[in-house]
Amino acid sequence: MSSEFFDRHSELLHQATTAIQQRGYWSAFAETPSPKAYGETANGDGKLAFEAHQHKLFDLGQPGISGQTEKEVSPFGIDLNTTYNKSDLNVLFPAIHQAALTWRDAGPETWVGVALESLMRLNKKSFEIAYSVMHTTGQAFMMAFQAGGPHAQERALEAVAYAWAEMSGVPKTAYWEKPQGKNEPLKMEKRYRVVPRGISLVIGCSTFPTWNSYPGLFASLATGNAVVVKPHPAATLPLAITVQIIREVLQDAGFDPNVVTLVAHNADDDTAQTLSLRPDIRVIDFTGSSKNGNWIERNAQQAKVYTEKAGVNQIIIDSTDDFKGMVRNIAFSLALYSGQMCTAPQNIYIPKDGIDTAEGHFSFDEVASAIGQGIEKLLSETERAVEILGAIQNDATSSRIEEARALGDVVVESKTLTHPLFPSASVRTPILLKVDAGVEDKFSREHFGPISFAIATKDTAHSIALSKKIAIEHGAMTISIYSTDADVLHKVEDTAAEAGVSLSCNLTGSVFVNQSAAYSDFHGTGANPAANTTLSDPSFVTGRFYVTQSRVHL
Amino acid sequence: MSSEFFDRHSELLHQATTAIQQRGYWSAFAETPSPKAYGETANGDGKLAFEAHQHKLFDLGQPGISGQTEKEVSPFGIDLNTTYNKSDLNVLFPAIHQAALTWRDAGPETWVGVALESLMRLNKKSFEIAYSVMHTTGQAFMMAFQAGGPHAQERALEAVAYAWAEMSGVPKTAYWEKPQGKNEPLKMEKRYRVVPRGISLVIGCSTFPTWNSYPGLFASLATGNAVVVKPHPAATLPLAITVQIIREVLQDAGFDPNVVTLVAHNADDDTAQTLSLRPDIRVIDFTGSSKNGNWIERNAQQAKVYTEKAGVNQIIIDSTDDFKGMVRNIAFSLALYSGQMCTAPQNIYIPKDGIDTAEGHFSFDEVASAIGQGIEKLLSETERAVEILGAIQNDATSSRIEEARALGDVVVESKTLTHPLFPSASVRTPILLKVDAGVEDKFSREHFGPISFAIATKDTAHSIALSKKIAIEHGAMTISIYSTDADVLHKVEDTAAEAGVSLSCNLTGSVFVNQSAAYSDFHGTGANPAANTTLSDPSFVTGRFYVTQSRVHL
Repeated sequence: MSSEFFDRHSELLHQATTAIQQRGYWSAFAETPSPKAYGETANGDGKLAFEAHQHKLFDLGQPGISGQTEKEVSPFGIDLNTTYNKSDLNVLFPAIHQAALTWRDAGPETWVGVALESLMRLNKKSFEIAYSVMHTTGQAFMMAFQAGGPHAQERALEAVAYAWAEMSGVPKTAYWEKPQGKNEPLKMEKRYRVVPRGISLVIGCSTFPTWNSYPGLFASLATGNAVVVKPHPAATLPLAITVQIIREVLQDAGFDPNVVTLVAHNADDDTAQTLSLRPDIRVIDFTGSSKNGNWIERNAQQAKVYTEKAGVNQIIIDSTDDFKGMVRNIAFSLALYSGQMCTAPQNIYIPKDGIDTAEGHFSFDEVASAIGQGIEKLLSETERAVEILGAIQNDATSSRIEEARALGDVVVESKTLTHPLFPSASVRTPILLKVDAGVEDKFSREHFGPISFAIATKDTAHSIALSKKIAIEHGAMTISIYSTDADVLHKVEDTAAEAGVSLSCNLTGSVFVNQSAAYSDFHGTGANPAANTTLSDPSFVTGRFYVTQSRVHL
Repeated sequence: MSSEFFDRHSELLHQATTAIQQRGYWSAFAETPSPKAYGETANGDGKLAFEAHQHKLFDLGQPGISGQTEKEVSPFGIDLNTTYNKSDLNVLFPAIHQAALTWRDAGPETWVGVALESLMRLNKKSFEIAYSVMHTTGQAFMMAFQAGGPHAQERALEAVAYAWAEMSGVPKTAYWEKPQGKNEPLKMEKRYRVVPRGISLVIGCSTFPTWNSYPGLFASLATGNAVVVKPHPAATLPLAITVQIIREVLQDAGFDPNVVTLVAHNADDDTAQTLSLRPDIRVIDFTGSSKNGNWIERNAQQAKVYTEKAGVNQIIIDSTDDFKGMVRNIAFSLALYSGQMCTAPQNIYIPKDGIDTAEGHFSFDEVASAIGQGIEKLLSETERAVEILGAIQNDATSSRIEEARALGDVVVESKTLTHPLFPSASVRTPILLKVDAGVEDKFSREHFGPISFAIATKDTAHSIALSKKIAIEHGAMTISIYSTDADVLHKVEDTAAEAGVSLSCNLTGSVFVNQSAAYSDFHGTGANPAANTTLSDPSFVTGRFYVTQSRVHL
């Protein structure tokens, strides 16, 4: 049964492994929530399925129930009220260990087959997951569908493809014949076995519960590990649905479903720490704050730890031949999901003496104002604005907006919009502040949310140096450069490479610096404090398994 | 100039990358010290070159000299008396950083080309290195030549092949075209760059200064890192010669030789700790004690750390159809380099009721005695014995032999032999002790050196369980099983996989459990405390570099 899944999806796997080598555009899953791609009733069915979780206990059938979590809350203000079983780890973990035994011995084809079948079924549930992502993260529907559904599934498939490429690079057997001069050669058969590292822990975040969790979850599953998913208490539903689907696939393949489990919990308890320090947790994938991520890196020494943490993403404006396109692009990047993306820009460096453009010279103030006006224009119609901004995920982000106001001169104020459908949602437009490069302590740390700075630098060389320093010291996922000067572009490319940051050059159309495309864009490098790993590359998967061998004379 | 080396050795690289995929027998370098392979005068020339280092300061021309080390001592008792410059790290490291800049930007072909050319030149110096390995480690000449010369070079080439395979798996550019329905597709060019992690530190050991250091040294060099080699103070010469040769190649390729440097030092100072904690040391390869290795793993959190530490290697005797072959093989494994190998067996589990063989049943005592007699027979002629045993590397190992005597009943005593050529060398035959499995604390830790235990277990199932427990708790590189029972072999293969140990089955001929063949045998798994990595596999190289990218619209 289990290798049936592998056979069924072998062409998909082949395409994905080709895609990660070529790194051009490829996709396995339709990114638009269209009836043509997903079926006429998919949206309605998904919405109903989502609504069926409201006011309910989400029961995964796991052993070791020890009460229920508090009711889940939607940033859009609807009554979500889903609850989950809490787990008695002393009951749950023995069951996981038991389930892991058979899974461990099933081998790469079976692991990968189950992972691929799970992704196919997850894709069919993209609408249900989209509504659940929307109502836990505050993302507008379109982003919740794309990033939470097909794009997350692509990132998972990418990780599975890397896992398969690395595991299948080890032959199952080899014939070894060593010449011995005039004597008979030495002849041995060698057998190699891929052995999972152990139990894997995936710690989700509140803003991208699926997109950021799937790579680790699927990389670990596809390399034979049992996986414990610990969602952020604010965004449990999308991962509960995910775990439920994978458990069904495991059962259909003849395995104990406890290979994949959910440990739901209430906010502000010590579940993450307790799980992270268990000796039997041998792999941890974490997305969240630098404080928590650094703590895990330092303390969970029994585990291979992959983290994505805070960072300060940066835009360097040197010159442009498409000022309007640049402004539109930047404004959208700042507004998208209210800056609650790990790739969203925060710092915009502009020379204090202004920049040259095709339409002439613009002063620092003119550039900053243009971006501010770009934001206002983009968000001038509330109905359209809320579909870009979504809702603020939690109150701490709203508070940061208020606190930010004191950090500089306000170019454009953060406005509160009333969502036409969800009037109690906190919808906020970005605040843009003007500061001098001298007040580095104000903008050198992450201000998570719709908060950004137009920073007056001496010149572009200063902008580049500052962006490098901040990336190296405080972390960064992305740098974006606008320049018509090939030397400047070359210099920034070198700088971004040194600082380990993904660079985007002259984005003036409908690609945004926030976006990273599976199979083509590496997300994170591991080279600066924003992340210690890349989604995905060989090093993201090779730490999840061992290869053992035996040899015997023939 | 630098890509010339890559072109010159491209066929060699192709063969090596094929070999690591197929994992059959392959070799690049002749393993016998024959005139046919190395030239009529190679031995004499190498010996002279080695002797030229005696009583001399070995000057690498590095900046930042701060005095000289104590004189190097040979376990064979000859007057070695080589000294080395000590380094002022405050002078040396700025020079390394300077050298690293150009090296970093040279790119994978150049890095790999320089690594391959270095290996070719090292191979030509195999005799000089052999004598230097012999007179620092105490290895007999043949082992010093093979393990210190060509086999170490093969392990280095293997690591370079993995580095190349992983780096060349990332395209330099990609064209990304995303369909946009009826609109023009989005078109981007993406550029990817391999960026070295930083400065790499290789910490050598006293018994296999080249074999254990080369994989990390060459993996780091081939991925663009600058490399600081810190030899064990007792075995500096082989690595000083190695560093000298690589520095010459770097210069010939137009690079600053300070890309690769040696930090020689005296025993019992804090050089290893000081270097390991430097923020600019981003990769560490360590071979040595568990105490030091665990300290580095725990404290050098700024670095990617690869360690090989202590372990307890084990032989399980269940049954055999070639009793004499088994005894001969085990005796040789115990005697080879006086058990001073990380792969040498220590614990021999034998059922207390004895074993079945083709020649009938043998009691526990008979099996233990036969192995003891096998050792005595193998080493009965001193001239032959010293070529197997070599010399004891340091006094601590001699002391361990004396202390071991109290741990059980002596089956065969460790004898002191007088080396015909080096009368002051400490040459010791193995001690074999008989104990009951109940005294686990006596044999569950590593007794490094020619010390082994015949352990009476309840039955083979007990032997297997004990070997697994000790491997998981205390580490192991190798397990060896003798059995004619397919079920037992299968069970041990499962157990070895679970414990992350390389298994050898029924070795009765001229392959020994101590030996691991480059390109075919994985050395270490990372799955138990004996090592946190494998020599070599993809995970051994992927942590040594990052991939950064830039993208631009077309």
